[in-house]
Amino acid sequence: MYGAGHSGRLYGPHLLDEKVMSQKIVPVILSGGSGSRLWPVSRSSYPKQFWPLLTERTLIQETALRGVRAELSAPIVICNSEHRFIVAEQLRDVGVENARIMLEPVGRNSAPAIAAAAFLVAETDPDAILWIMAADAAITDEAALYASLEHAVSAAAEGRIVTFGMKPTRVETGYGYIESGAPLSGLDGVFEVSRFVEKPDAATAEAFFRDGRYLWNSGMFVTQAGVFLSEIKTFEPEIYEHVGQAVQTRHSDLDFDRLDDASFRQAPDISVDYAVAERTKRAAVVPGTFGWSDIGSWDALWDLSPKDDAGNATFGDVFLDAAKNCYVRSDGIVATVAGVEDLVVVVTQDAVMVSHRDRAQDVKHMVSRLKKAGRKEAVAHNRMYRPWGFYESLIQADRFQVKRIVVEPGQKLSLQKHFHRAEHWVVVGGTALVTRDTDQIMVRENESVYLPLGCVHRLENPGRIPLTLIEVQSGPYLGEDDIVRIEDVYARN
Amino acid sequence: MYGAGHSGRLYGPHLLDEKVMSQKIVPVILSGGSGSRLWPVSRSSYPKQFWPLLTERTLIQETALRGVRAELSAPIVICNSEHRFIVAEQLRDVGVENARIMLEPVGRNSAPAIAAAAFLVAETDPDAILWIMAADAAITDEAALYASLEHAVSAAAEGRIVTFGMKPTRVETGYGYIESGAPLSGLDGVFEVSRFVEKPDAATAEAFFRDGRYLWNSGMFVTQAGVFLSEIKTFEPEIYEHVGQAVQTRHSDLDFDRLDDASFRQAPDISVDYAVAERTKRAAVVPGTFGWSDIGSWDALWDLSPKDDAGNATFGDVFLDAAKNCYVRSDGIVATVAGVEDLVVVVTQDAVMVSHRDRAQDVKHMVSRLKKAGRKEAVAHNRMYRPWGFYESLIQADRFQVKRIVVEPGQKLSLQKHFHRAEHWVVVGGTALVTRDTDQIMVRENESVYLPLGCVHRLENPGRIPLTLIEVQSGPYLGEDDIVRIEDVYARN
Repeated sequence: MYGAGHSGRLYGPHLLDEKVMSQKIVPVILSGGSGSRLWPVSRSSYPKQFWPLLTERTLIQETALRGVRAELSAPIVICNSEHRFIVAEQLRDVGVENARIMLEPVGRNSAPAIAAAAFLVAETDPDAILWIMAADAAITDEAALYASLEHAVSAAAEGRIVTFGMKPTRVETGYGYIESGAPLSGLDGVFEVSRFVEKPDAATAEAFFRDGRYLWNSGMFVTQAGVFLSEIKTFEPEIYEHVGQAVQTRHSDLDFDRLDDASFRQAPDISVDYAVAERTKRAAVVPGTFGWSDIGSWDALWDLSPKDDAGNATFGDVFLDAAKNCYVRSDGIVATVAGVEDLVVVVTQDAVMVSHRDRAQDVKHMVSRLKKAGRKEAVAHNRMYRPWGFYESLIQADRFQVKRIVVEPGQKLSLQKHFHRAEHWVVVGGTALVTRDTDQIMVRENESVYLPLGCVHRLENPGRIPLTLIEVQSGPYLGEDDIVRIEDVYARN
Repeated sequence: MYGAGHSGRLYGPHLLDEKVMSQKIVPVILSGGSGSRLWPVSRSSYPKQFWPLLTERTLIQETALRGVRAELSAPIVICNSEHRFIVAEQLRDVGVENARIMLEPVGRNSAPAIAAAAFLVAETDPDAILWIMAADAAITDEAALYASLEHAVSAAAEGRIVTFGMKPTRVETGYGYIESGAPLSGLDGVFEVSRFVEKPDAATAEAFFRDGRYLWNSGMFVTQAGVFLSEIKTFEPEIYEHVGQAVQTRHSDLDFDRLDDASFRQAPDISVDYAVAERTKRAAVVPGTFGWSDIGSWDALWDLSPKDDAGNATFGDVFLDAAKNCYVRSDGIVATVAGVEDLVVVVTQDAVMVSHRDRAQDVKHMVSRLKKAGRKEAVAHNRMYRPWGFYESLIQADRFQVKRIVVEPGQKLSLQKHFHRAEHWVVVGGTALVTRDTDQIMVRENESVYLPLGCVHRLENPGRIPLTLIEVQSGPYLGEDDIVRIEDVYARN
């Protein structure tokens, strides 16, 4: 009944059929996750949508490219302000140059985020259709996805708010469900929604799996901007009011649309399911079988990954011996795993996580414990991305710290000074233009410069290749907060 | 019958009784192990005897202190030439200033090593008694050890070659066994040896465990130097000849006795068991129950370590959640372990090892694979100890490397030069005296100096506190072998 396949035209020049293509379809990518479930790789400073977990591209890159391949309109990405440069850089990296990046001053769950995108689109075209999706889901069968999208768009064009329901491939207690009802007349592949169901217990999930009418709630929606807003106005007038205000009074910050903080902050923290999907009379569902997963645990990632004959999925510098059904990943030092079954072993530059696969979802408890213990490994990576490049600490001791700093061509750090530390910079690749008080000094590969405590300084890469330097800091206090920014091209405080 | 306890005098001023104390007893510590069984902590560059695995002291320190506590003669340590500075430093560190350190130019198994010690002692006192032991065994009940030593010394004084046999505490296939025979008349706690038995299969080990006469061969011996040499002369005349020559023509190298390479190299590679113990008519055994273990695997170390209520032994920066009967150790980044049983997880600065406890002995296969793959992690640690202190690589890239170098007070590196790299030195602690071609430069904390490619240079710590510096190397080739030593106080090439 569901997922009956797609027609031959998917292999033609366009992925979507002409009638669908004639609509304005705007991908809306929600990048709000903080991602402790895939710790230690995913952390709030750099959550899972920004990692290449299944392909050589990151999840948000794969997500954005789905819209590009279907030749849809420029996407809107809604993200945490802290991640704006990562989003911009990752999209640029795969040639998505036209995205609008909207910054949430605070996280307010999915209903306000989607409302913000809807307001933005409705300014010019309230009939435009939004394709709302998470930045961090996996889809293994894109052809099937586009077939489902065609069905959904047809229904959305008639005023429906259409959810994608995934046909269960196993008994699963980790997702909410949608009970599908009667087929919508005249709309191929679209069904009424009988009801939404919270995450079930094991027995209920078992029954759902056998029943056939119950579908996983993927969190992907298709709706006209205007339709969504009218439903929000009805069910959540406070969201309508405050988010509408936040969009209207947004301010532009470089290439970003920054939602007004004071207004957005007043919007209630509610998911789109509660706010609209479960209440609207316009709900419809398109059952799909395109291999969707929210990659909610290392176990789920193991499930999606290619494996060897013994069922092991490995990435990075890994050696196995008599291991079975394991997920082993290293983004850092070499990992050897021997004589074990059903384990997850994940190594990053600064943490090792070992867990039974069946207990992989409990990693969030470990992250909470680490947070409580004040451990930075719980939330931030050693390598910190900045609009100008990145830095990472190589060693931190009592009175000194050594960092590697990489500055992309043409970029410059803020003009700054420190009260508690002096810095030595040794250039090991590229060329640096260093401002030191009133001097401008060109520092070439294998040269160094000294920045005494209190001097006003700036680092810039005037060249065509990345600038790599080793910074040796010394002083009694070496915290990142000992920085006074005097001027910054990236408008940071 | 065995291990009947020890008398009250062990709690008096001397650990051994007067008759025993009247003998000259020389501890002979064999430090020849290369230790891949406790990889990744133990490696040939820094094997397990040099690690604090059970107490705050290293195994060789604990071993040497056993002789000190019993007020025995100055120990002889026989070690690989490469480890000489580690041995000297670790013994100094626990106040053992009088050890003679004999360097083996090549490893030739235990019979030649012990023969060398026997020749050395016999030069002045052939009746002196050697207490021969490995540098890397654990003993949990030292009072019981001294009681056994008293028995062994009494028998050795009468010309016996006495082995310590451990009463089995479990069915064990990993050790050789000694079948004990009739008690020796007039010698309390000493028995004839019926036979030596190779490592048994499981059924035989089970039978041995029930039988009661079978003891684990601990590899510890007590014998007069002259008696041992006469047996070696009888059974292995080639060892007698070549090792005798190697000792006679030894040369002194700073505080070390270096066995003559050409002679020692000709000695056959044979264990003391094959060469003497299994052939001599003078064999005797003292059954002991002093908690001896050769710590032959991570599982054995788990067994010896203090544990929490769930049977977990942890060391270093470790977080556990629902773990049971695990050994988890980190000498590097944080390790979290959740929802697993019977695992060994060991993290060092540059490697992670995960194994089932029952398969922990297979780590040696993993080390072989890493060696074959040309991985330095198999044999050497990131931190390299030198006579003057240590260095470690913080990052190694294509054309640059950053190291931390720590020089102990009063020490100096060799006068040297490099053909392929320039170096920046930034002092972050202490004071350096730097020779650069014809200059002598005092470099203070937070100052730096540049050493261009080809310049002749030397680093020295003239102060009273350790000197810490960050070295940034740059050049097309950064191998440790790009070094020309012009002068070296430690007599290295």
